[in-house]
Amino acid sequence: MDTVFENVTAVLPDGSALKDAYIGINAGLITYIGPQPPAETAANVIDGRGKVLMPGLTNAHTHLPMTLLRGYADDMDLQTWLFQHIFPAEDKLTGGLVRTGAQLALMECLASGTVSVTDMYFFSADIAYAVAESGMKGNLSRPFMAENNEVRFSEAEELVARYHGFDNNRIQVDASVHAEYTSGPEIWEAAVRFAQKHGLRIHTHLSETAREHNECVAKYGLTPTAVFDRHGLFSVPVTAAHCVHITDEDIAILAARGASAVHNPVSNLKLGSGTARVRAMVKGGVNVALGTDGAASNNSLDLFEEMKTAALLAAGNDPLTATGALRLATVNGAASQGRNAGQIALGCEADLILLDFDQPHLQPLHNVVSSVVYSARGSDVRLTMVNGKILYRDGEFLTIDRERVLHETRKAACIF
Amino acid sequence: MDTVFENVTAVLPDGSALKDAYIGINAGLITYIGPQPPAETAANVIDGRGKVLMPGLTNAHTHLPMTLLRGYADDMDLQTWLFQHIFPAEDKLTGGLVRTGAQLALMECLASGTVSVTDMYFFSADIAYAVAESGMKGNLSRPFMAENNEVRFSEAEELVARYHGFDNNRIQVDASVHAEYTSGPEIWEAAVRFAQKHGLRIHTHLSETAREHNECVAKYGLTPTAVFDRHGLFSVPVTAAHCVHITDEDIAILAARGASAVHNPVSNLKLGSGTARVRAMVKGGVNVALGTDGAASNNSLDLFEEMKTAALLAAGNDPLTATGALRLATVNGAASQGRNAGQIALGCEADLILLDFDQPHLQPLHNVVSSVVYSARGSDVRLTMVNGKILYRDGEFLTIDRERVLHETRKAACIF
Repeated sequence: MDTVFENVTAVLPDGSALKDAYIGINAGLITYIGPQPPAETAANVIDGRGKVLMPGLTNAHTHLPMTLLRGYADDMDLQTWLFQHIFPAEDKLTGGLVRTGAQLALMECLASGTVSVTDMYFFSADIAYAVAESGMKGNLSRPFMAENNEVRFSEAEELVARYHGFDNNRIQVDASVHAEYTSGPEIWEAAVRFAQKHGLRIHTHLSETAREHNECVAKYGLTPTAVFDRHGLFSVPVTAAHCVHITDEDIAILAARGASAVHNPVSNLKLGSGTARVRAMVKGGVNVALGTDGAASNNSLDLFEEMKTAALLAAGNDPLTATGALRLATVNGAASQGRNAGQIALGCEADLILLDFDQPHLQPLHNVVSSVVYSARGSDVRLTMVNGKILYRDGEFLTIDRERVLHETRKAACIF
Repeated sequence: MDTVFENVTAVLPDGSALKDAYIGINAGLITYIGPQPPAETAANVIDGRGKVLMPGLTNAHTHLPMTLLRGYADDMDLQTWLFQHIFPAEDKLTGGLVRTGAQLALMECLASGTVSVTDMYFFSADIAYAVAESGMKGNLSRPFMAENNEVRFSEAEELVARYHGFDNNRIQVDASVHAEYTSGPEIWEAAVRFAQKHGLRIHTHLSETAREHNECVAKYGLTPTAVFDRHGLFSVPVTAAHCVHITDEDIAILAARGASAVHNPVSNLKLGSGTARVRAMVKGGVNVALGTDGAASNNSLDLFEEMKTAALLAAGNDPLTATGALRLATVNGAASQGRNAGQIALGCEADLILLDFDQPHLQPLHNVVSSVVYSARGSDVRLTMVNGKILYRDGEFLTIDRERVLHETRKAACIF
């Protein structure tokens, strides 16, 4: 056995907690769960007293390099933010800057318990390089849009050739349709052919704003979900980010086609887009995952904050519950990437995080999952492990040169 | 001069940041602000490189000892939560347990940058003891209700005698009317006489739920704000917590009477009470402060989270803005307690906090106040100072015995 966590409080898939537990890991998988030590000795023993071991978190929709634009433009609606501030700033980006922004983001992710990301951005090969080097998991994509369409498809082909399946599928490439309103039926159908040719999922923005919904209905007589469906987009597994302005019929389509919806509550509030109907989607059978969106519209990549916000926005008479919110960020997130992860269960990929609960804001401990969702912060994470390998521990990044990336970040910020 | 912060980025009252600043403190007040070192030498020099110095935060509505019930009952509406779970649990509390819960809460406050609290609870002398010992500021009160009214007034008298004005007004006692729905006109008028006799403010819960609003209108033909006003409650300065279900006329009354409203966005979401109209109150001239409410309905006392939630809920076309959200938690909070604090300005009380910005999730730094509100967490606080005295630094509590309180907390939790 490679590693064992001893005397730890482990969060189990049903939301219960196993106290004084032993969790064993071998060859990147969880191979032992029990109240007694495993028979086999482990090369690496980690003391879990006063700590909670839980599945690592999946950020199912983000744009990693947008960390460089953290705090660059705030307190405005999506249209103003995007067209007057973000797009002009992004015109100044280079591959090197994108790599730096992605590395900065990956440090933030690791330090706050995120083990896997679903990203969509340009200079995607630089992002893939950064994720590959970091040891994290990622579903990465170069989005297709009406503009510069040929270049985008050729970059996506190159990304697939270089990175799809890297390190035993730790990195997967997605096909990506940026959004309904930035493309059209020809591109959607080409994206489906591209995905089918390489065996990829599709990542897209879907029904983020009321304006998008209304303009689509005016143009096609159909909602974005329905017009995508008419053109076969959901014939491959789809990860649809936002899903704020969707109808009951849209929910039925997403559920029937096995699509995943990604809830981005903080970004949707900050840009004034609204709040997705998470309870309706969950009850309708849609796999709902959780994302932060980019740091420019959040301005954080901390999924603990996102879990709490998701639970709070759904609270009242028909709550999501703490266990439900945790599920979005763990097993549902992993499912949205097609991975056997996100749970402390035998045979699951060993993507685990350890939180220090011996702190005033996490005591007393009446209910472990409640405290994870409503009281813990990303900064309580003391160890982040992906496929059984420790990537972050006690403030140290084992795969990323913290000081170099922070130095390059400060230089990069001067160009905006 | 007692203390100088050197080479620090200081947040100024207008929301701008003074980089490489020197901030001097003498006899508990801010006495120097400038880009050059002060002429006078300081006994204590604090290096501020890579750090942000900002006003400490005021938690303008909380119930400190409810930390003992953190995570005890979640995912239900206010009525069920309060009557079926919280009240029965509170029946088991003793003065000793309340003191432990308050000390636990004060550690959480200090570690996340809170310098002052407005509290309302029972065993209030034990809470006052804990706040006095901690070095923090507090406006503390024993609430008046219809039930056991005589005991409550006599406890409040004793609290005033022992603690009102303690340590140069570091501790102030408020009169407190628990809420409109738990008392009546005789108690309101008695509370006003009590406040006038001792020169106190009044702290109350006001219009937290739609049910409270509707039942009050049915009973008196007036909103809770209007019926309080008819009985003279606002003839003394009032701190009114929640103010979720208030009318434009209520806002006009609060503004005209100089009352402070306390926004508790997380608790209001979690208990399904709704979201207060903060923009309308601010525009209407009401002093709006920020609070966490008790840890049992939040489940955190981190005002950084509360600032971000307040900004997010107000975002869209008419945002509160990051500067506006910061104002709620600083200068407005101090004003709601009648204190000359909450700003880095000459002559203000030196209640200051220092945040470490040399971290991946706080870089790059395009806009300091945006990063404070949208990206920082309570865990970024490295130093908390009240009246020029350091109470918390680099994880160490200088006035509270962390291990003893955590030990007593774990014992206390077993009784529920």
